[in-house]
Order: sequence, then C-alpha cells, then structure tokens
Amino acid sequence: MKFSVHQSALLQLTQTVSKAVAVRTTKQVLTGILLEATEDTLRATAYDLELGIQDEIIADEQSGLRVEQPGAIVLPARYLSEVVRKLPLADVTVTIQNNYVAEIQSGQAQFHLHGIDAAEFPKLPLFHNAERIEIPSYSLKRLIQSTAFAAATSEVRPVLTGIHLQLENQHITFTATDALRLAVRTAALNSAENQNWNVILPSKSLTELAKILPDDDSLIQVQCTNTHSLFAVGSTLFYTRLIDGAYPDTSRIIPSQFRTEITLPTSDITNAIDRAVLIARDRDNNQVRFDVGADFVTISSSSAEIGNVAEQVGILQKTGDDLQIAFNGKNVLDALRTIQGEEVILRFNGANQPFIFQEEGEPSALQLISPVLTR
Amino acid sequence: MKFSVHQSALLQLTQTVSKAVAVRTTKQVLTGILLEATEDTLRATAYDLELGIQDEIIADEQSGLRVEQPGAIVLPARYLSEVVRKLPLADVTVTIQNNYVAEIQSGQAQFHLHGIDAAEFPKLPLFHNAERIEIPSYSLKRLIQSTAFAAATSEVRPVLTGIHLQLENQHITFTATDALRLAVRTAALNSAENQNWNVILPSKSLTELAKILPDDDSLIQVQCTNTHSLFAVGSTLFYTRLIDGAYPDTSRIIPSQFRTEITLPTSDITNAIDRAVLIARDRDNNQVRFDVGADFVTISSSSAEIGNVAEQVGILQKTGDDLQIAFNGKNVLDALRTIQGEEVILRFNGANQPFIFQEEGEPSALQLISPVLTR
Repeated sequence: MKFSVHQSALLQLTQTVSKAVAVRTTKQVLTGILLEATEDTLRATAYDLELGIQDEIIADEQSGLRVEQPGAIVLPARYLSEVVRKLPLADVTVTIQNNYVAEIQSGQAQFHLHGIDAAEFPKLPLFHNAERIEIPSYSLKRLIQSTAFAAATSEVRPVLTGIHLQLENQHITFTATDALRLAVRTAALNSAENQNWNVILPSKSLTELAKILPDDDSLIQVQCTNTHSLFAVGSTLFYTRLIDGAYPDTSRIIPSQFRTEITLPTSDITNAIDRAVLIARDRDNNQVRFDVGADFVTISSSSAEIGNVAEQVGILQKTGDDLQIAFNGKNVLDALRTIQGEEVILRFNGANQPFIFQEEGEPSALQLISPVLTR
Repeated sequence: MKFSVHQSALLQLTQTVSKAVAVRTTKQVLTGILLEATEDTLRATAYDLELGIQDEIIADEQSGLRVEQPGAIVLPARYLSEVVRKLPLADVTVTIQNNYVAEIQSGQAQFHLHGIDAAEFPKLPLFHNAERIEIPSYSLKRLIQSTAFAAATSEVRPVLTGIHLQLENQHITFTATDALRLAVRTAALNSAENQNWNVILPSKSLTELAKILPDDDSLIQVQCTNTHSLFAVGSTLFYTRLIDGAYPDTSRIIPSQFRTEITLPTSDITNAIDRAVLIARDRDNNQVRFDVGADFVTISSSSAEIGNVAEQVGILQKTGDDLQIAFNGKNVLDALRTIQGEEVILRFNGANQPFIFQEEGEPSALQLISPVLTR
C-alpha cells in the first residue's frame, strides 16, 4: 500500500472514526484503525464490536489523495492520530513496508509505526436487504438529545441502557428511562410506509452519533437488521449493535389525567432550579422542592451544612390544586434542557405521583419524573 | 455587614482570590473567602498559609458597590463562587444575619450560606518597612515563565521546588533546577540600588502569579521580608511564603567553554522534537537523540513496541565537533518554548556533559539540560 494525502484530510479522517476505537480491551487489533486504499479512495474504520465508524476520502484536489498502490493495514489509533496531528500542514505519504510497518513521511519527518495485518480486523456487520428509512438530520439529533440522557447508566437492567426505537404508521418514537425518569419524543416520517421497527439501541452510541449529526435537514439513511443498525451521515457510516431483550411497556406509566397543571417561562424555571441544585446534595438525591401556590411556584432546597435557597417564579397559567412536591433537581434540569420553546407546561397528580413536563404547543415530546418521597 | 454590588464585579472578585483557597485541609476556615466591607470598599481574601491573594472593589458606578453596613465574614469559597456565578446579571445584596449566616439576594433568588466568624481567618503576613523593588509586568512574567517549569515537583529537596531569586547590582536573576535541568534568566532593574536579595519562592505560587500578570509594562511592586514576599498587581495583592534553606550554587555547573556550538531555526527544532517525543516513552525518560553532522542535525527516537521517527533540521551555523547525544525530549521542549527569537544556539561538551540552549542575541537567559547517558 502506498498513498499521499493532505495532512488535514488524513487528520479529519482519523479523528472521525476514533470514537469507535476500543479503549479497554485485550484484543490489540481493536485499538487500531483499519486503513484501506483502493485506486481512488482511502477508507478508515474503527470498530470496538459495539460501535463501528467508517469514513473515506475520495481522490480529488481537496483531499490531495493519490493512491500509488492499493492495500490495507491496521495502525495503532492513538499513535496514528497523534503523529498525523503533529505533522506539518503538507502532503503526507504513507507506505507499507515489510512486516506490517507503515512509513509515514512528511517534509523532513519520517515515522515508522508497527501495524497489524488488516486480515485480523473484525468485519463490520452486513446490511444486505436491510429495512431502511430516511430522516432529516436535525430531527434525528433532537430525538436523541431529548431522550438519551434519561437512559440508565448502570448495567443492572441492560435494556434500560438503551433507547427504545419504535417505528409504526410513519412515526418514529424514541423512549429512554432509568426507572426514575422517562423521556419520549416522536417524529413523523415522509418515508417508511408499511415499516414497523421495534429495537433497542445503546444510548452511548446514539450520543456519539448525535455529535456528528449536522443541524440541517440533510437526510440521514437508517438501516436495521435483527442485530445491528447503520446510520449514513454524509460519507460517514455509523454502525451500532442492538441491545437484546424486551423493552418495558412505558406507555402505561404515563398518566392521562392530572390534578394540577401550570405553565411557566422555561428560562426562569430552568435558572431557578439550576441555582437550587447548588445547595442540594448528591447523597440527598439532589432534592429540590416545588411549592405551587396561586400565582407563584416557590423553588427551594436546603442542606444542613451549606444553607438554603428559595426563589419564586410567576405562574403564567394554572388549573387545579396547589401542591408541594420534591424531586431530583438534576434530573429535572436535564428534562427542562430538552425544551426549546419559551413556555413549559408541568402536570402533576399530587406529591407522590410522577409528574410531566411538556413544551407548550409540542405534544410530540414528554418528560416524566418520579418525585422524591418526602417524610 | 450589608452591601450591594453588581454580580459581575463580585464574581470577578471571588474568582481572583480563589486560587489561594485551601483545597486539602482540616481547617475549615481556610476553605473560605474572607469578605470585609468598609464604608467604600469590599475586600476579599483567600489564604492557604502558603499563598495568599487579596483584592478589593471600590464603591463606584462600574462596580455598583454600596456598603450599607461595614462588617466581615468568611464564606465557603466553593459555594460562594458557584452561587455568584449562577445569579442573574443584576445587583446582588449580601447581608450578614445572626450566627454568621449570609443572605445573598438577587432578583427573586435568595440564598442563605453558613459562614464562619471573620476573627478565625488567619492574618496575612505584615510588610512594614519591607524592602521593595518595582519591575515591569512583562519582565516579571518572562522571568517566571522561563524558569518555573524547571523546578522540582518532588518534595525530596524542598529548596528545589522553589525559584531562587537573587537581586544585586540592580539585576534580578531567577534560577530553577530539578537537578536534571537548570533554567536561569536575568533582568536589569531601574530601581533597587544598593539592594541585595537572596530568597527562594515556591515555584507553584509564582506560576499562579504569572497567570494574572498583564503582558504590559505596568510596574509590579515586589516586597520581601525574611519569611514572605508580596507582589502588588493593580489592586490584587499576592502573598507567598519563602522556602527555608540554602539554594545550591548553580553557577559552577554552567560550563564556560564548549566543544560544539550550533545555531538552529527555533520553530524547526521545536517541531521536530515535539514529533520525536510522540514515539519516546515515559519509562525511557522520553529519550530523544541528536546526531549533529556537518550540515544537519538528525533528531530521532524509537521504541520497540511503537516504531521510530527521524527528522533532519538544517544547521544555520556551526563550530566544533560532530556529536551524538541523547536527552529527555520533554525537558528540552520546555526549554525551547522559553525562546521567543527565531534562532536558538545549542552548546555542547560531548555526549556525557550538560548542554545549553540560548536565544540568539539574548545572553540574559540560559537553559541547561543533563543528557541521558547512553550505553
């Protein structure tokens, strides 16, 4: 294998795939990046067996890619990225020599890195005849960002570390819950007629995917098999395995009737809880309290060692009873940060029942929070 | 005590002094910030008994300070800073209530923080009749930045964790060494006639000082007693204790004659060593090699697991013998980064003797490096 390419193009290629490089593993090949040069492309792949990212550069003026001899090699991701980052802003020539040694040459600098036979690199999952849909990038990003934070981080119930993706009637729904909070968002699709999906995707993988999704309406192609899904973002292919198991039926825990309903200015209530969390203690579940009166909500928290805080936020609209309720302030902040509109609706059924947040005029998303039971 | 002040002014005040707040201590009062309000100033002090920082706000339109009732209190630094940072961009009113509780009020938000009696806060050292000099800020900053990194980080020989400050003949010299490298820089002073100082200042404290020194020629007042020094940077007072002990006589280890002398382009050699360090291993003292030939220096490093790198840098001027020498690449990078000029002079006495770096045309500073002895 031998190719030349602009330093900046090679750097971007290695950085794009590096999120899928295995960090803790005994299989050395998984800590590497597979580089494959064909006549007119250079392709890079990283795959830790859960998440796989593949991208490629086309031979053109912008990339400066010229492949002299096709071939493939696995190079250690950490050193490849660091070496490429520190090379001069000029053309880089990579040549594979005997014994899987890569010579990386740029300007006066000449590196030799020990590589591994490309045949040892695991194969990415295949997607022949897989079901596929298309979804605008900003819409997919919002689905992920509105739900992924609510997934469980502990592995006690592996399905809860995932996001439940359901597709039916040309609507796609993302659901995540860690059993104390629940986040749901739905989006309508133009494609996907007669398709029904019901899969669980690792929330960590989707969080990484969200980072590379552009904030525009470019269409992301999503494919799904029984074991894996594949997202195509421009030239970047993003593979993730599915989580095995049955996702709990969360629809039953969302109440349909409420005893109290209030509308608040999103930024006022977010800032007030942000301040209240400063005083709330981790070991006390970051406990923050709401006292819903006639015209104001009083947000408060206290800690024996530090002190206390109280703040009033004016209620824009209210129906139903007054209420006192305590909750994990950090979870509520996460929920509030998914709301882009200026007004948020909170719906309660008393101090000991889950309550929900919804953006005013946006019924397609919902955040549910279990209260902290108080003495 | 009761005062009002703009949130931004209070935030800046608490952030300025926060570097001197004790982190690991059993004395709770040292984790606090002392706030003292007089009729027309608000003063903040943090002091971990090694480093002390004091700053103040004057009552004027910019700060928005209005003191209604003078007084003093110690408030927990961590919570005070976080609370002030998250307050609205508006006026903040601080009122001390009974039992050392501070009420912090801004907009609708009202915090109560548990404080400590100001009488428990340690007194800053006194500087009555102390010797004093003045030095331009950029000059002091350069003295620190050219030397502090070379001080020892281990406490085995406490004096080596300091910077040796010598003042005589209206010249101030900073010296630091960790026994493997030595950094020296001298600056001429316009003041300080007939003054002789010979003190050791903690390098960590001076590194913090350098961060707040402006890059201009404003004059910094420096005072010294037998136990402490004091730097006045605008309204900020920066106190540090001196390190007890005798600093080693480092002048004797700086050679005056050399067998090889070469001039190199600073950026080329810096970049080449930066790349070579990527392959060098920590456990191998980050070993990088120089091979000084007739027209080129070859910079190289290698590691059995990773690979190797070699790069040539053209020599601008040379006198004396060819040479091969090995050194700790990270130490040499630190030394090279103190050099602002385009050309650097390297002077050697063979493979087993210390070598020095000096900026072309800048004899007032010197970096000395012990080689790694090779088999």
